[in-house]
Amino acid sequence: MPEFLTLVPPKEALKVFLDNIPVSTQTDNIKTTKALGRVLAENVNAPHPLPAFPRSTVDGYAVRALDTHGASGTLPTYLSVVGEVPMGGEPEFSVEAAQAGLIHTGGMLPEGANAIVIVEYTQQARDGEVEILHSVAAGENVINVGEDVKSGEVVIPRGRLLRAAEIGGLMALGFTQVQVVRKRVVGMISTGDEVVPPDKEPKNGQVRDINSYTLNSLVQEAGGLAQMYGIIPDSADAVQKAAETALRECDVVIITAGSSVSTRDITGDVINKLGEPGVLIHGVNLRPGKPTILGVCDGKAVIGLPGNPVSALVVAGLFVVPAIKNLLGVTGTQIRATIPAKLSINLSSISGREDWIAVRLEPDNGEYTAEPVFGKSNLIFTLARADGLIRIPADANGIPAGEIVDVELM
Amino acid sequence: MPEFLTLVPPKEALKVFLDNIPVSTQTDNIKTTKALGRVLAENVNAPHPLPAFPRSTVDGYAVRALDTHGASGTLPTYLSVVGEVPMGGEPEFSVEAAQAGLIHTGGMLPEGANAIVIVEYTQQARDGEVEILHSVAAGENVINVGEDVKSGEVVIPRGRLLRAAEIGGLMALGFTQVQVVRKRVVGMISTGDEVVPPDKEPKNGQVRDINSYTLNSLVQEAGGLAQMYGIIPDSADAVQKAAETALRECDVVIITAGSSVSTRDITGDVINKLGEPGVLIHGVNLRPGKPTILGVCDGKAVIGLPGNPVSALVVAGLFVVPAIKNLLGVTGTQIRATIPAKLSINLSSISGREDWIAVRLEPDNGEYTAEPVFGKSNLIFTLARADGLIRIPADANGIPAGEIVDVELM
Repeated sequence: MPEFLTLVPPKEALKVFLDNIPVSTQTDNIKTTKALGRVLAENVNAPHPLPAFPRSTVDGYAVRALDTHGASGTLPTYLSVVGEVPMGGEPEFSVEAAQAGLIHTGGMLPEGANAIVIVEYTQQARDGEVEILHSVAAGENVINVGEDVKSGEVVIPRGRLLRAAEIGGLMALGFTQVQVVRKRVVGMISTGDEVVPPDKEPKNGQVRDINSYTLNSLVQEAGGLAQMYGIIPDSADAVQKAAETALRECDVVIITAGSSVSTRDITGDVINKLGEPGVLIHGVNLRPGKPTILGVCDGKAVIGLPGNPVSALVVAGLFVVPAIKNLLGVTGTQIRATIPAKLSINLSSISGREDWIAVRLEPDNGEYTAEPVFGKSNLIFTLARADGLIRIPADANGIPAGEIVDVELM
Repeated sequence: MPEFLTLVPPKEALKVFLDNIPVSTQTDNIKTTKALGRVLAENVNAPHPLPAFPRSTVDGYAVRALDTHGASGTLPTYLSVVGEVPMGGEPEFSVEAAQAGLIHTGGMLPEGANAIVIVEYTQQARDGEVEILHSVAAGENVINVGEDVKSGEVVIPRGRLLRAAEIGGLMALGFTQVQVVRKRVVGMISTGDEVVPPDKEPKNGQVRDINSYTLNSLVQEAGGLAQMYGIIPDSADAVQKAAETALRECDVVIITAGSSVSTRDITGDVINKLGEPGVLIHGVNLRPGKPTILGVCDGKAVIGLPGNPVSALVVAGLFVVPAIKNLLGVTGTQIRATIPAKLSINLSSISGREDWIAVRLEPDNGEYTAEPVFGKSNLIFTLARADGLIRIPADANGIPAGEIVDVELM
């Protein structure tokens, strides 16, 4: 029996996978000060307009626009100053014809006034009087009630990832609590007779567990919560038992396989027995990451990752991170930030297969050179020395030196 | 007296500022599992080589390379199979002339063997025998001891930001604890008679505090710890007192000014009285953000930000984030990720001044269009509607529609 029947292109594999993962509906009500990086669970509507009162956008004098018509440096208009608008309070005066009130940026427009003359276009005159050196139109330098945000308007839509700006927006409207999508728990199973925990001194033939920790970090960054199920020996029964527990307790299960063929086969069988429909994709046309398994069992995503730490981390970036974001219902443009850089050497690849290559970015005259980082065994330090990854598409035979490539930052 | 004597270009302002901030030397010893996003405080040297034993990179048969010379599909070589290398253990046999041992990816090379024939180039022969269909060179498909990492080698340098890959690298070498730079505490003072806390219903003329929360989020993302000193009224004495407390208790102090000219002047005076040398830069040739104040008082960075929430957040991204990274001693390329996008409309700007414009990214046939997001008052929702910012350099008069711009993601 061939190890993989068909290798599916990564993009197609991802689509099949995500189409089979339901979006989570569980939410949490949390303090807005703790909501950075969380996903909004419901539309936020403005409970009141912003600004809530007519505001000045400049420092100057609140006037009736009509009074300033014709005013110029050579022929100023004189208005009597009837008061100063206090910051944080209502003006205690109104502006009548031929009157003006001193106002600061953000101050409330006094009644009667409909425009502000910026302070630079005014001049101190006799006591209680100001010279207006420039005319203003009605509405000039004023923001009206609701001009920024109307009452009832959806200001932040459901599914939005909350960044600094959204946290500020929520506070501006008085939302000190916010309904967010509950973090999804990702169960992590490491398998392999050769794998020992990092605090153990490995004997000959043993290596320390790396994948549990790199994937844990990636899951955290994607907005998930990792739960560790330890290192399971290469036995179908033991892996099955651990996977069943993880599936019961988590929303996503990741099984990183040992590196031998037999242990890779175990993962596929375990996922198929775990629940319906089981394995959706077994083998992706990708390097590193060919032996990736994508499955859904009883409505939960189950992913079999290659045991090699570099492969596991690259594949997790391509499939686990989107799965978590999909579960969380993140909407809006999913943008992977890239840096354009000039490739330092020729890179060859096999046409028909998508390749991901780790590169280091070297600053070069305000631009960047992408220097591939190779490691014979694809050890984790290959990635620790790299700033990002470049993709060689399946329809290319490689990329020539000097070409500008898009580096996805890790 | 003019409000600003000279407006300094942003790049020059940042250099003067950073050159005056000392790098922190305080460190913490923490669990590696908690170290994601922290900065390494000392070089990490490999306590042992990786791999620690000679390892197979494939599934196959460990052989003496000499025995395979001349082997081909039509004229196979027959070797007697003397054992199987257990995963996670030492082989209990050695490979002598005309012998082979079954080995799996990651398995330890048996003594006597010096190469692996990949399983696809072998064939099951009589019991206890394998047909070798292809010759191998000495060292083929084997990684020798220390080929990835040599004992004593610096594998992660001091000042490196710890990402998933570095966490994995530390674990691979058994470092379950790690020395990181202590998080720097950023004291936040909001000023303004018109500002009320978000949980208060603002009266006419009042607005809710936004800056404390947007800046708190930004500080967290940059690797700092925010400490709040509340909302201080527009009085020089009150601001001075709060700033003195914050300077004593924190490593960086941020004062966001009220929006009127008088309160902006207070901040500069406060910073000058706070410690030596005081204000370094008062006014940056930047929009938004002209009234930015950069100072250093008794070796600590003190920053005066404009009160407008959009200005405060943009300026904090340009000056506060680099200040925190500088304090933490982050080394390596400081890369701001960008997305190339086609500008949707003409943008004009004043030559000689650097402008930052908020844009929304619209997917367009696998590429992006950058759609400027305008708000009359630069309310925080201008940024909440945006994906990133574009920069119009000081030497440009604007950017024409259709041009490809680099969007810095927020």
